[in-house]
Amino acid sequence: MTEIQNAKDVKLFALNSNRPLAQKIADKIGIPLSKCSVSHFADGEISVVVDESVRGQEVYVIQSVSDPVNTNLMELLIMIDALRRASAKTINVVMPYYGYARQDRKARSREPITAKLVANLLQDDRINRLITIDLHAPQVQGFFDIPVDHLRAAMTFVNYLKEHHLDDNVVIVAPDHAGVSLVRRFAEHMGGVPIAIVDKRDNSNREHRNESVPEALIGNVKDKTAIIVDDVVDTGTRIANSAELLKKEGAKDVYAVATHPVLSNGAVERLEKSPITRLIVSDSIVIPEEKQSPKIIELTVSGLIKEAIARVHNHQSLQTLFH
Amino acid sequence: MTEIQNAKDVKLFALNSNRPLAQKIADKIGIPLSKCSVSHFADGEISVVVDESVRGQEVYVIQSVSDPVNTNLMELLIMIDALRRASAKTINVVMPYYGYARQDRKARSREPITAKLVANLLQDDRINRLITIDLHAPQVQGFFDIPVDHLRAAMTFVNYLKEHHLDDNVVIVAPDHAGVSLVRRFAEHMGGVPIAIVDKRDNSNREHRNESVPEALIGNVKDKTAIIVDDVVDTGTRIANSAELLKKEGAKDVYAVATHPVLSNGAVERLEKSPITRLIVSDSIVIPEEKQSPKIIELTVSGLIKEAIARVHNHQSLQTLFH
Amino acid sequence: MTEIQNAKDVKLFALNSNRPLAQKIADKIGIPLSKCSVSHFADGEISVVVDESVRGQEVYVIQSVSDPVNTNLMELLIMIDALRRASAKTINVVMPYYGYARQDRKARSREPITAKLVANLLQDDRINRLITIDLHAPQVQGFFDIPVDHLRAAMTFVNYLKEHHLDDNVVIVAPDHAGVSLVRRFAEHMGGVPIAIVDKRDNSNREHRNESVPEALIGNVKDKTAIIVDDVVDTGTRIANSAELLKKEGAKDVYAVATHPVLSNGAVERLEKSPITRLIVSDSIVIPEEKQSPKIIELTVSGLIKEAIARVHNHQSLQTLFH
Amino acid sequence: MTEIQNAKDVKLFALNSNRPLAQKIADKIGIPLSKCSVSHFADGEISVVVDESVRGQEVYVIQSVSDPVNTNLMELLIMIDALRRASAKTINVVMPYYGYARQDRKARSREPITAKLVANLLQDDRINRLITIDLHAPQVQGFFDIPVDHLRAAMTFVNYLKEHHLDDNVVIVAPDHAGVSLVRRFAEHMGGVPIAIVDKRDNSNREHRNESVPEALIGNVKDKTAIIVDDVVDTGTRIANSAELLKKEGAKDVYAVATHPVLSNGAVERLEKSPITRLIVSDSIVIPEEKQSPKIIELTVSGLIKEAIARVHNHQSLQTLFH
Amino acid sequence: MTEIQNAKDVKLFALNSNRPLAQKIADKIGIPLSKCSVSHFADGEISVVVDESVRGQEVYVIQSVSDPVNTNLMELLIMIDALRRASAKTINVVMPYYGYARQDRKARSREPITAKLVANLLQDDRINRLITIDLHAPQVQGFFDIPVDHLRAAMTFVNYLKEHHLDDNVVIVAPDHAGVSLVRRFAEHMGGVPIAIVDKRDNSNREHRNESVPEALIGNVKDKTAIIVDDVVDTGTRIANSAELLKKEGAKDVYAVATHPVLSNGAVERLEKSPITRLIVSDSIVIPEEKQSPKIIELTVSGLIKEAIARVHNHQSLQTLFH
Amino acid sequence: MTEIQNAKDVKLFALNSNRPLAQKIADKIGIPLSKCSVSHFADGEISVVVDESVRGQEVYVIQSVSDPVNTNLMELLIMIDALRRASAKTINVVMPYYGYARQDRKARSREPITAKLVANLLQDDRINRLITIDLHAPQVQGFFDIPVDHLRAAMTFVNYLKEHHLDDNVVIVAPDHAGVSLVRRFAEHMGGVPIAIVDKRDNSNREHRNESVPEALIGNVKDKTAIIVDDVVDTGTRIANSAELLKKEGAKDVYAVATHPVLSNGAVERLEKSPITRLIVSDSIVIPEEKQSPKIIELTVSGLIKEAIARVHNHQSLQTLFH
Repeated sequence: MTEIQNAKDVKLFALNSNRPLAQKIADKIGIPLSKCSVSHFADGEISVVVDESVRGQEVYVIQSVSDPVNTNLMELLIMIDALRRASAKTINVVMPYYGYARQDRKARSREPITAKLVANLLQDDRINRLITIDLHAPQVQGFFDIPVDHLRAAMTFVNYLKEHHLDDNVVIVAPDHAGVSLVRRFAEHMGGVPIAIVDKRDNSNREHRNESVPEALIGNVKDKTAIIVDDVVDTGTRIANSAELLKKEGAKDVYAVATHPVLSNGAVERLEKSPITRLIVSDSIVIPEEKQSPKIIELTVSGLIKEAIARVHNHQSLQTLFH
Repeated sequence: MTEIQNAKDVKLFALNSNRPLAQKIADKIGIPLSKCSVSHFADGEISVVVDESVRGQEVYVIQSVSDPVNTNLMELLIMIDALRRASAKTINVVMPYYGYARQDRKARSREPITAKLVANLLQDDRINRLITIDLHAPQVQGFFDIPVDHLRAAMTFVNYLKEHHLDDNVVIVAPDHAGVSLVRRFAEHMGGVPIAIVDKRDNSNREHRNESVPEALIGNVKDKTAIIVDDVVDTGTRIANSAELLKKEGAKDVYAVATHPVLSNGAVERLEKSPITRLIVSDSIVIPEEKQSPKIIELTVSGLIKEAIARVHNHQSLQTLFH
Repeated sequence: MTEIQNAKDVKLFALNSNRPLAQKIADKIGIPLSKCSVSHFADGEISVVVDESVRGQEVYVIQSVSDPVNTNLMELLIMIDALRRASAKTINVVMPYYGYARQDRKARSREPITAKLVANLLQDDRINRLITIDLHAPQVQGFFDIPVDHLRAAMTFVNYLKEHHLDDNVVIVAPDHAGVSLVRRFAEHMGGVPIAIVDKRDNSNREHRNESVPEALIGNVKDKTAIIVDDVVDTGTRIANSAELLKKEGAKDVYAVATHPVLSNGAVERLEKSPITRLIVSDSIVIPEEKQSPKIIELTVSGLIKEAIARVHNHQSLQTLFH
Repeated sequence: MTEIQNAKDVKLFALNSNRPLAQKIADKIGIPLSKCSVSHFADGEISVVVDESVRGQEVYVIQSVSDPVNTNLMELLIMIDALRRASAKTINVVMPYYGYARQDRKARSREPITAKLVANLLQDDRINRLITIDLHAPQVQGFFDIPVDHLRAAMTFVNYLKEHHLDDNVVIVAPDHAGVSLVRRFAEHMGGVPIAIVDKRDNSNREHRNESVPEALIGNVKDKTAIIVDDVVDTGTRIANSAELLKKEGAKDVYAVATHPVLSNGAVERLEKSPITRLIVSDSIVIPEEKQSPKIIELTVSGLIKEAIARVHNHQSLQTLFH
Repeated sequence: MTEIQNAKDVKLFALNSNRPLAQKIADKIGIPLSKCSVSHFADGEISVVVDESVRGQEVYVIQSVSDPVNTNLMELLIMIDALRRASAKTINVVMPYYGYARQDRKARSREPITAKLVANLLQDDRINRLITIDLHAPQVQGFFDIPVDHLRAAMTFVNYLKEHHLDDNVVIVAPDHAGVSLVRRFAEHMGGVPIAIVDKRDNSNREHRNESVPEALIGNVKDKTAIIVDDVVDTGTRIANSAELLKKEGAKDVYAVATHPVLSNGAVERLEKSPITRLIVSDSIVIPEEKQSPKIIELTVSGLIKEAIARVHNHQSLQTLFH
Repeated sequence: MTEIQNAKDVKLFALNSNRPLAQKIADKIGIPLSKCSVSHFADGEISVVVDESVRGQEVYVIQSVSDPVNTNLMELLIMIDALRRASAKTINVVMPYYGYARQDRKARSREPITAKLVANLLQDDRINRLITIDLHAPQVQGFFDIPVDHLRAAMTFVNYLKEHHLDDNVVIVAPDHAGVSLVRRFAEHMGGVPIAIVDKRDNSNREHRNESVPEALIGNVKDKTAIIVDDVVDTGTRIANSAELLKKEGAKDVYAVATHPVLSNGAVERLEKSPITRLIVSDSIVIPEEKQSPKIIELTVSGLIKEAIARVHNHQSLQTLFH
């Protein structure tokens, strides 16, 4: 673990999306969260005031663009505007979950590319750096011209699985076609284990993005522990349906790993009813109390982010955090 | 009234904030609203698809940045991204209510200037023109480098007041210091009638923006019909308190005019309990059924906007709409 | 008073508009003015050479955009170009008087917004910060995306008035509608004294900007010391006419305060003939000898600016200078 | 097929990378290629002169960024500079093969994202539109803020395969993990046939991008016609090794489809020695005579591009060309 | 001569620097000058109002950046701002004399490049095109990324000289080293006559730009008519001293040609006392009555500019005007 | 010679164009060249990986844009992209030879200005500074808005000539019209010696840029040592033909000096056959073994560049290097 140098030049701010994670990061760095007031007027407008001087400081703002997505994004943009006008030396955005990342291409005529729009909004508001975790497509890094430190939570999950002896006779399963590269890399971290792919026939239809119609399994899971690996768990339908299929195909046990617990309405019920044994997620997004479940294990990425901030600030290489 | 020329080159789109006004504008122009799908995923993300070709078309998008402010703003930005990528010839934003316009300066250290941020977001997303009504400060035009057509609803209200014989023995009242120029101009349109000013001692404190502590009246309202004129009615406190003061100072009757009916929580009750006879507003923001009140009169600005769109499209002067 | 740290990293340059003020600032900081040659060729072109190395230095350039407005502005833009190409680390513009600030909105069709143009020229020429005093409208801060430190000279004037016992039985008077907020804030600094407003019937007509037709006074000045407060004194007509009106309405004595002594042709004569006892201004603009008058008291803002520069350079909060 | 309207406003220019394709497109549109001189000086510099007036014209420039990649890219950028300065109304780049598209993300620390760099070079040189075919990752569209018309050659290949009765008992094979989505979509066009995936263990290592170490096959190809589908055929190693594996796993016959025939040194020999029956490619890149082979079938995309240009020019929807 | 097409889409505006030339251009095109009010306030600020609608129009603004250089430049920038906000379709600047063009490089450390600053100011204020005549260095075209139509007045002068039989036994003389290319091209237009060069020993010293210390003549002028050709005549020292030298070297007769008659203080006297027979200039800059002299012949470039505007508007090639 | 301070903050990278010069610079500074891998794929694409951390470092990249011009330029642009994304603090480009610099203006209709394009590509890829030597036209500095340190190699050559007693009875010769200013400055460094000019009749024709048709000599070289001075030696035709002419005009001996030895095909043979005694060049461009010749003397500019880097890094004036 890296000690931060010149900690007095650093200010860490948390907005409203994920204060518990921000507090853990601050604790690990060993500095308090700086003070800012982010309030919402009765008419829905956001008001931001930075409550301590940031002149000449290196500022890190921690905010996930999770539900309420648009409000959390605007909180961030307004905070950046305030920091810039308040003469911060650098503005570094730590966005554990990059909302809208799945809208990263035109799948049909006359669609927006909202992940790029978000990149433009951030860049045009003039930040110096983005630190984020497990983007839906790594190409999103290229939506930016500023440095993007794209951290990978895989080792956090792999370590947990190994500690819980879930690395024997396993197969890593991609719940859709786009995730096969991610799954192969995860399988390498697990020691070069085999992979399988859930072969949905139609994944191009955006309107029903939350639905998932698994057709068939490619690969062999018979009598194995199947571990579905995905970047996001949203409605849970994709994981639940995949788990059903895996069971039908003879998997002994089914686990799921997903970095970002979006957990939209009905997701928790769906996962509880499904044959998965455990869903392992990170704390990149807060899971509200009513969505907590004994089936869901939350691992913290605060150590990963703390390490990234310390190395960025110390001008040390982050290479080992990119795998 | 101006007839639009080459109407086949024009597309009018309405997003979710104010479809009734958009429909009225379309009806007055005599073309249908074009089709687009603006939906919200379970995780809070917005999805936009433009459902008809806009290649080479002059597109007008009608959206107020009213509550839910951040969602309505993001709907607009995403729509603009989609239209640009879909090769629209020009993208003209019609924003009857420009949310965040009141955050137009740093009143204290380390505040953002969110009205400028909104201008930057729109400009950087590359629109060709903004058409808006009764900005909180006319300087917000200068936040843009593209043409801004800043329409004035004053004549709509003045005509109503004259039709209802509310132009005799009247005094126009500014409910705070910043609105005196607006009120003097309104008084000119009413025929050069006198004005008065509610003298609040502390209006610089943003945290309590929604509160209003009238101290004293400057000017004479004794036995007159007092008409409070403001750009926005938000919590209603300012108007309600002003009305009390005016009554105490001997006003015969108190009316209020405010272009944009933000009407935050409690506003309608507050206004109903207050001594104002009528609050006259525009339909720049939809008043939901539960907030409608016999005290509130809604006048439409659809004719004003229709006229602006027609003249912009025909390349005719808008000068008469700017007073 | 704040001591500047690392003074050897700072260079202070004065251009031609206001060398006496620049010298006072340099003296208070305790460093000499750096050398640059700003000359004018016979054909009217300006020639700038920076005569000492500025590589890696934090540079402050002091220049008011006062008459000759366009020449002073171009001197500044050319100097910025020279400094940037000469590898200055940061370029901070100190503009005690921001010329063209009153052209901050379109009052009529087809007008420019020249205050924004000036902001664009400065920003596009890539400065890092603007320090200015008493802008005509605080919204002009939002014309910039870089940090703007908007200093207020009010306390300089208030302290003088209190020292001269001009804070008893006083009323602060706004000479037009747009200045009421400024006047209310000044009245607070004076201890919460009452205000009055000169109600001109037509202030929207730019062509006759320099003329002033007071119609009536709103508020009570009878037997009081009336202090007219404005940001700029240009032709003096507005103050002179207001003073006449105040006298007619029974004011015991009339003073005027205006931060920026533009004092166009005829202004001094007009003020000398008027019933004002004293006009109190700052040294943001040099008053040439032929315009000096026993009625005009000049207070220096060099201390205010020195304090701002020191705090900016030390990365300390400027909050107390913004009131 | 769409007729182009107002053909006299259109100019079509071909640079040096792929004149035969450009000529076919011009012939199909029914206009001649416009004249420009693109020569190379003895010192390696490129010289461009546009030999006919383009003032007010809609210009389309046809250039693939194929080997010599950097020279072809610079030819294009220089041509764009010339056209812009020559007052072309719009500059539309038709880039059948987008070189550097595979460098679309940082796979390791301190790598560039050259596909984004290319996008920036094109955009900063101010083009109005990009028309391209089968990008390596569709996210590259989001590297641009201008309209990108991303055409798909799939139907050209599917039609050929169906005409040659290669749609019965087939399986579509992805030669690596990243291509599974592409392959699933191709399989849908073929009538919903099954897919298989070549599971390479290490595809993250850029230095050996041209090598390919297939490990295992996921999915069933036994006694089937296997059709490998990829966007690019570069060294041919990936296809050749995959073909070996497919044969070993019992495939009856192996075909390969790849839109862009990069065919680096040794590729043709490698493919000729491999068990593939035919490699079917497009003419997005010229295959020089010495690389032609009876095993390689070239299908033209000139019809696809001609259709795109005609619809863009006529302001008609391109939707059907995006599948 | 070219007839302008669709003249009703064109608006021609003249600012204050050169109304006589603008009027001649308008007369030759056959349309009236459009109306705008450009006035100067008592405090030196410029006020611009465009007095007729320019929505959707192609606008040409005629302004030389001649003495008073800074004021004329600001007039132009403010006019552009007004036109842009007034929704002009295109803004074309016609700048017969490009002031500051001689400050086109850093001759010493810490100098500005003011010719580039002027280019940036114009471009950032977003014009569509610049039409100018005889730039000091043709590289200034490259300071812009928009189309620059760089007209040449040479043929106007050559025709005059030939008509007056001044093309026999002549030698064209460059008064300094930088002008040799210009002089060689002029000599070609005169029929391939010889050239000579005045060899000043020190021309790098900007402070004394207006001085000129001719050292020696390179080339032979004995018994010939020597015609000095330069782009600008400023103080006249360079031409006067060159003429002395030429006479000393045996020239029969000395004429001078200079496109832009800057004619700074003392220039006319200096030229009248010098041995030149005639100075032939263009009307790119107004020669005020007190500077007119029988020695100075003024030829009009209104035909050249008229032709350029007509061809630009008609989308015809300007090639023949570039020699 | 200046010692570099804080050498640990500096990284020096060499790309492929001129590693020997880069190594000499590194040796003189006393730090090793940093490691990066710049390789070329079989398909012609360039791959760059920076092999050591550059976070927070001041990086200097040494690359001449010499043959292969386009590849060397792309190597540089890709390296910059990598460095920026890798969080380098500043990126300083050292470009001893600026390719395309001769394409610095439109000599004919519809030409590009490629020297400006190169400037734009570099600036848009966001470098902090350019250090270059002997630009074809000094105006190219103005193509940039960042600091350009334009070093002059003249003293390197002058010192050599003086050491070899080639400063007596010499005349400095400009081989074309555009180079006269350069030659006059060189003559001053040589002690104020006379100059002569080779008068080609047609130098505006770009197509035949490499040809050279000397017509006549202006000035006197009889019995003198003639030293032709140019910025670039490309095909050698210009120097060879000039030498012939000088001999014919009676020059005792002819030398040539040219900073940048482009030496296109045939140049060496041409020069060897010509009457020049020696061609003296710098090592701004590597001369491959097959082009080396006893007639060509190479002087190193590594000391000049080392001095520039040290002073830039130490924030010291470079003024003495600009002559």
